[in-house]
Amino acid sequence: MSSSDIFIGETIGTAILILLGGGVCAAVTLKASKARNAGWLAITFGWGFAVLTAVYTSAPLSGAHLNPAVTLALALKKNGIEWSDVPIYWGGQLLGAMIGAALVWVAYYGQFRAHLTDREIVGESAPAKSVEAREAGAGPVLGIFSTGPEVRVAWQNVATEVIGTVVLVLAVLTQGLNGDGKGLGTLGALITALVVVSIGLSLGGPTGYAINPARDLGPRIVHALLPLPNKGGSDWGYAWVPVVGPLIGAAIAAGIYNVAFA
Amino acid sequence: MSSSDIFIGETIGTAILILLGGGVCAAVTLKASKARNAGWLAITFGWGFAVLTAVYTSAPLSGAHLNPAVTLALALKKNGIEWSDVPIYWGGQLLGAMIGAALVWVAYYGQFRAHLTDREIVGESAPAKSVEAREAGAGPVLGIFSTGPEVRVAWQNVATEVIGTVVLVLAVLTQGLNGDGKGLGTLGALITALVVVSIGLSLGGPTGYAINPARDLGPRIVHALLPLPNKGGSDWGYAWVPVVGPLIGAAIAAGIYNVAFA
Amino acid sequence: MSSSDIFIGETIGTAILILLGGGVCAAVTLKASKARNAGWLAITFGWGFAVLTAVYTSAPLSGAHLNPAVTLALALKKNGIEWSDVPIYWGGQLLGAMIGAALVWVAYYGQFRAHLTDREIVGESAPAKSVEAREAGAGPVLGIFSTGPEVRVAWQNVATEVIGTVVLVLAVLTQGLNGDGKGLGTLGALITALVVVSIGLSLGGPTGYAINPARDLGPRIVHALLPLPNKGGSDWGYAWVPVVGPLIGAAIAAGIYNVAFA
Amino acid sequence: MSSSDIFIGETIGTAILILLGGGVCAAVTLKASKARNAGWLAITFGWGFAVLTAVYTSAPLSGAHLNPAVTLALALKKNGIEWSDVPIYWGGQLLGAMIGAALVWVAYYGQFRAHLTDREIVGESAPAKSVEAREAGAGPVLGIFSTGPEVRVAWQNVATEVIGTVVLVLAVLTQGLNGDGKGLGTLGALITALVVVSIGLSLGGPTGYAINPARDLGPRIVHALLPLPNKGGSDWGYAWVPVVGPLIGAAIAAGIYNVAFA
Repeated sequence: MSSSDIFIGETIGTAILILLGGGVCAAVTLKASKARNAGWLAITFGWGFAVLTAVYTSAPLSGAHLNPAVTLALALKKNGIEWSDVPIYWGGQLLGAMIGAALVWVAYYGQFRAHLTDREIVGESAPAKSVEAREAGAGPVLGIFSTGPEVRVAWQNVATEVIGTVVLVLAVLTQGLNGDGKGLGTLGALITALVVVSIGLSLGGPTGYAINPARDLGPRIVHALLPLPNKGGSDWGYAWVPVVGPLIGAAIAAGIYNVAFA
Repeated sequence: MSSSDIFIGETIGTAILILLGGGVCAAVTLKASKARNAGWLAITFGWGFAVLTAVYTSAPLSGAHLNPAVTLALALKKNGIEWSDVPIYWGGQLLGAMIGAALVWVAYYGQFRAHLTDREIVGESAPAKSVEAREAGAGPVLGIFSTGPEVRVAWQNVATEVIGTVVLVLAVLTQGLNGDGKGLGTLGALITALVVVSIGLSLGGPTGYAINPARDLGPRIVHALLPLPNKGGSDWGYAWVPVVGPLIGAAIAAGIYNVAFA
Repeated sequence: MSSSDIFIGETIGTAILILLGGGVCAAVTLKASKARNAGWLAITFGWGFAVLTAVYTSAPLSGAHLNPAVTLALALKKNGIEWSDVPIYWGGQLLGAMIGAALVWVAYYGQFRAHLTDREIVGESAPAKSVEAREAGAGPVLGIFSTGPEVRVAWQNVATEVIGTVVLVLAVLTQGLNGDGKGLGTLGALITALVVVSIGLSLGGPTGYAINPARDLGPRIVHALLPLPNKGGSDWGYAWVPVVGPLIGAAIAAGIYNVAFA
Repeated sequence: MSSSDIFIGETIGTAILILLGGGVCAAVTLKASKARNAGWLAITFGWGFAVLTAVYTSAPLSGAHLNPAVTLALALKKNGIEWSDVPIYWGGQLLGAMIGAALVWVAYYGQFRAHLTDREIVGESAPAKSVEAREAGAGPVLGIFSTGPEVRVAWQNVATEVIGTVVLVLAVLTQGLNGDGKGLGTLGALITALVVVSIGLSLGGPTGYAINPARDLGPRIVHALLPLPNKGGSDWGYAWVPVVGPLIGAAIAAGIYNVAFA
C-alpha cells in the first residue's frame, strides 16, 4: 500500500466511523430525532455497524485500522507493519475523526439547534413537525462527541479502557491467523464489528468504551471548535484517559499475541 | 443480463423491499398489530433485513440495485453499467416500490381499518380479538409509506439525505473491489443489509433515511391512490427531497470512488 | 439422502425449531421467567435464531426443510425433490413439532405451573425465589404453542400468511441459484434465519406469522393434549388458516420461481 | 495441538468469555453504569457476542471449546479428541473463568463500590458524575457471577440445563460435518455465537442458562473470594446443578450425534 492510499483510506474510513458512531449518539440524545431514547442496545449496535461500514469501505485502500491503538499493535506484533507507516495511519485517523464529527453536526444541524436553543430553525416557511422540538432546550452534548466516565477515578477509568482495548486488539490480531495476515477480509470486518458490539455491551458501562484514541480526541477537538450555543465544556481534564488507556491496552495485547500466538 | 431479467428482477426485489420495509412501519404503528410500539431498533433492523431479503432474492436476475441512486452510481463509476440500462432499472424499481406498498396495505388491511376508522371489519361472525382495536381510531399513516422530516428545512433535509446516501453508495461500490465487480455476492448482501441498519440507527433521526428515491416516491403515489379513510395528506411538498438528495449523494459517492478507489 | 435420514433429520430439526421458537414465547409470557416482557424484538430474533440453530443442526441429514410449505415448494419447482419424499418430510416435520412443543413444557414446567395455578411447585423444600411467582396466576397460554390473529377475518388472515410465505419460500428457492441447489449451505442457514426475523418484524403484526403448517398444527395438538390446568381452548376454528395459507403461498412462490428464475 | 497451546488457549478464551459475559450482567445490573436496565435482549446478545469474541480469539490455539460440556462431548463422539486431553481443557477453562470473573470486578470496580456501599470511591479529587451513584446502595450481585433459578426445584432446574446444553452441543458437533472436523471455522464461530443467543432468548428464562460448568463454577468461586462488602451469599446449594446438568446434556447430545449423524 502506498502512503497516499494509507492516508486517504484511513481518513475516509475513520470519517465514516465517527459520522455513524457519533450519529447514533446524536440520534438517541437530541430533541426532534426519530430515534430519541432508543436505548443502549441501539447505541452499541450503532457503533458496531459503524465499524462494519467503515472497515468494509476503507479496507481496500489502507487495511482499515481506523484506530491508533490497532495501528500501534500491528507495529508491535512480530512481522507487523513498518514503524514509518505509523504516523501516516495516525494522521489519517485523527483527521478523519474530526471530519466525521463535523459531519454529525451537519446531518443533525436542526436537531442540535432544537436541543440547545429551544428555538426552531428559521429561514423557510414550514414549521417544525415535532412538538417535542418546542420543549425547553438544553442538556450537554459532549457525549455525542467524546466519552466520559460515570465514576471519575483516573486509574479506574484507565483500567477499564485498557481491558476493553486488550479484547479488541487480541481479536483483531488473531484474525490474521485465519486470513492473509494483512488487514481484514470481508467476514473479518463483520466479526470485528460484532466484537465491538460485544465490548460495548459488556465493558461500556463505566467509561463509554473509547478503546480508540482518535475516536475520542478528534471529536473532542471538534466539540471545542464548533459554534454550538450552550454546548457545555469539552472536559479536557479527562481527555488523556481515552488516549493513554487504549495505547497501553494495545501494547499489552501485542505482548500476549507475540508470546502466546505468534 | 437481459433487459427483461433486469426489469423483472428489480420489480420483484423492490416489491419485497417495500413490502417488508413498509411492513415494519405498519407493524409498529397500527392498532391491533402484535408489534405495536416495538421501537426504533425494530424499525431499523426491519428495514435492514428487508434489504437482505430483497437483495438475496433478486440478485440472480438483476444484480439487485433496488435503488435509483445505486443504479446512478453504478453508471457513473468507471467501467460501470451501460447508461442504456438505467431507465430499465429505474422503471422496475418504481413499479416494484408501488407493488410493495400495495401489498403492505393487503397484509395489514384489518389493522389499517381498525386504526383509521375505529370500526371492526365486518363480514364474518368472529369479532376482533384485540380490545385495543376498539379504541378511538385515527392518526396519520403516511409514515408507513414515505419519509418525512422532524425539523422541516429543505437544505438541511437534503444534506442529511445526501450524507446517508454517500455512506450507502460508497459501501456498495467498494464491495465490487472484494467481489466479482458485478452486483453482490451472498455475504455482500448481508453486509449491505447491516450498512442500512447502521445508516438507520445513526443518520435516520432527522429525516427517516429515504436514501432511495424509489423507496419514497413509489409508496407516496400509492398512499395518494389508496381508498383509505382519514388517511391524511401525502405531503407532496416534501416529495422532491428524498428524490434529489439521494441522487446527489450517489453522484458524490461515485466521484469519491472514481478518484480514490478506482 | 435416505428416507430414514430425511425423517430423522426433519424430526430432530423441527423439534429444535419449535423448542426454541415456542421457548421464546414462553420466556416472554410466563411468570417467573427472567425474560418476561422482553418484547417483540426478542420474539422475532428468538424465532429467527431458532431457525438458524435448527437448520444448521439438521441440514447434514435432511437438507433442513423443517416446514411443509418449503417441502411443497421444493417439489413444485423445476428439477425439485421427488414427490415420493414429500410425505416423509411432512411426517418428520409434524412429529418433530410435537416433540418440540412438549419439550417447551418440560423446560418451562415450573413457569407454566406458577403462571397457571398461582401455586408453587411442591415436592422439594426450597421455595420459589421469585416473588412474582406468587402473584395471582392465570392467562391463556395458547400463544406459546400456536398463532392467532389480532383481527379475526378469515380471508384477511389467509392473505397475510400467503404473503409472508411467498417471501420466505422465494428467498429459500433463490438460494439454490447461489449454492449447490440441494438444501442450504452454512451461510445460507444464516440468511434464511435473518429472512425469518425480517418476516416476523414486518409481516408478523396481524397473525403472528405461522408461515409453516407444522409449526402451528403440531404445537396446537400438544396444547390440546397436555394436562395444563386453566390452559384455555386450543382455538381449532382458526387451525386451518396457518395450514392452508402457507401451502398456497408456497405454490405461488414456486410458480414465480419457475417462470422468472428457473 | 500441544498441551500448552490447549491450556493457554482455553485459559485466554474462557477468560474473555467470562469477562464479557459477566461484564454484560454487571453493565445492566450495577449502579453508575451507562447500560443499567438495558434489558434481556442486551444480556442475551452480550453473552452471544462474548462467545464470538472468545472463540474467535482462542480457536487458533486450542480449538476454542471454552466449556467442559463441549469438551466432554467431543471426547465422547466417534473419532473425537483424546481423553488424556480432557483434564487439560477443563483446567484451562476453570482457570480462565476465574480470571475473567476477577477482570469483571476490575473493570466495574467503581460500579460495584457505588452499588454495594452507597459511597463514592475516594482517592482522587473528582466526584462521581452520576447522581444515581449517590442513591442508597445494596442488592445482591451474585447474578453477575453465577446463574440461579427463578423457581427452585432441583430436577426441574437440571432438566432445563440439560435441554439447553443438548441444543448447544448438537449444534457444535454437527458443525464438524460442514468443516474440517477440528474445532470451528470463522463462520462457525459466528453461528455458535448466535446459537448461544438463541438458547438464551428461548431457554434462559427458568435458570439463566449456564449450559457450561466452568461458566458457573469459576465465577462462583471468585464471588466467594472477593472482598466485596454486602455481597450476599454464594448459593453453594445450587452450585451442582449448572455443573451436572450441562455434563448430562453433553452426554445425551453426543449419543444422539453418534447414532444419527456419525
